[in-house]
Amino acid sequence: MLDVILNHRSIRKYKSNPISPELLNNILEAGTRASNTGNMQAYSIIVSQAKDVREKLWEVHFKQNMVLQAPVTLTFCADFNRFSQWCLQRKASPGFDNFLSFINAAIDALLASQNVAIEAEANGLGICYLGTTTYNADKIIDILKLPQGVVPVTTLVVGYPDETPGLTDRLPLNAVIHHEVYQEYSPEAIDRFFDEKDNSDFTRKLLEINNKETLAQIFTDNRYTKKDNEFFSKAYLEVIKKQGFMNQ
Amino acid sequence: MLDVILNHRSIRKYKSNPISPELLNNILEAGTRASNTGNMQAYSIIVSQAKDVREKLWEVHFKQNMVLQAPVTLTFCADFNRFSQWCLQRKASPGFDNFLSFINAAIDALLASQNVAIEAEANGLGICYLGTTTYNADKIIDILKLPQGVVPVTTLVVGYPDETPGLTDRLPLNAVIHHEVYQEYSPEAIDRFFDEKDNSDFTRKLLEINNKETLAQIFTDNRYTKKDNEFFSKAYLEVIKKQGFMNQ
Repeated sequence: MLDVILNHRSIRKYKSNPISPELLNNILEAGTRASNTGNMQAYSIIVSQAKDVREKLWEVHFKQNMVLQAPVTLTFCADFNRFSQWCLQRKASPGFDNFLSFINAAIDALLASQNVAIEAEANGLGICYLGTTTYNADKIIDILKLPQGVVPVTTLVVGYPDETPGLTDRLPLNAVIHHEVYQEYSPEAIDRFFDEKDNSDFTRKLLEINNKETLAQIFTDNRYTKKDNEFFSKAYLEVIKKQGFMNQ
Repeated sequence: MLDVILNHRSIRKYKSNPISPELLNNILEAGTRASNTGNMQAYSIIVSQAKDVREKLWEVHFKQNMVLQAPVTLTFCADFNRFSQWCLQRKASPGFDNFLSFINAAIDALLASQNVAIEAEANGLGICYLGTTTYNADKIIDILKLPQGVVPVTTLVVGYPDETPGLTDRLPLNAVIHHEVYQEYSPEAIDRFFDEKDNSDFTRKLLEINNKETLAQIFTDNRYTKKDNEFFSKAYLEVIKKQGFMNQ
């Protein structure tokens, strides 16, 4: 396996060293080489380096310190604004104000983001994805002045690592792979696939700290509650609509 | 830039050579090393190699020949079925039947797919993404027997290339990058950024063949019409609901 893929870790502590403009350009250019829908490149990348902008982003990304520490924040957006504007200037009537176009544009943005992540890591940089992008998308739109046709999908913080965490565990490959068609999971298969995760030392400590009986309860009661998921579902759907992607 | 990123081309003609099980496992394992939401790995990859399954997939992917030629089709699905089943077996109440969870799971699936694509190309394989996955998701669900909590998001065909196409053009980097906050595009900026695309020899031939005045019209009138986009928007939203991701 490519070393850069095998050795990926999310980095949550960064040195203050800046990223040179040449290197930054290089990793962004790598993003643009990814596959995209019909070569429309229906995405934009907002490169935030100024302290005041990163401080505002830090607030809406649940004040995770790495957003302040890392010198660069990259917000990957689904963007049909640019392409539609081109169509209008070329006697063509764009029809991208709908959900399928949002999904296609989000796919473009995400494939570009993973290329950027890999190229960054290949050059000694560390990265971390911010899942909070979809949570507070409305506030990110205000901070980054995103116009109609543009919705933030994910964010990468990028910088030089100030920690060397171990590899994160993964489910056995067989747990996520299905041959030919989907194979339903028997209760025994679930037990087997999650055994390592359920019974690791790390999990045991986590259960003690959180005073929970099972790791799954930490996910459902603390980290990803039904209530929060529902609240942010409504908010993100509202954002998609407000930015003009729900006309179908 | 990493050669594998710089040299990416989508491959649309494949040799019939099979992919060895070891290499296939390697590229799938590379997928699992990608970042994902809270390490829940909310995705599944359906590996279709049997001819009858690939023939059915070929039908719903608009009969693109590469689906029949390439020995392996990988369908990347947003999947909260496995994780929710684990929660239920661990005295926890999963709350992932909502739109935010679908988006998070789709992000997981897409980052994994791009790792698979890069690892495949690094090993001499060719790949092509099938955007048609979101168009006929309902039919893919039937073919691959996807249960509640599972939605197809993208597909890769993978095999040994039987063509060596040139690099595809991209917009200048400045067209997709914004510094600090989003910069609106002036009409002149759009003209400048799309100049190469508008005026290439390839575009000129395309305009002749399609009897159109501008390239943009080929996108809006032939390839991605408002009518089709709206039809498939409704269909995909319906699929997301039917698979249980619209309870918020």
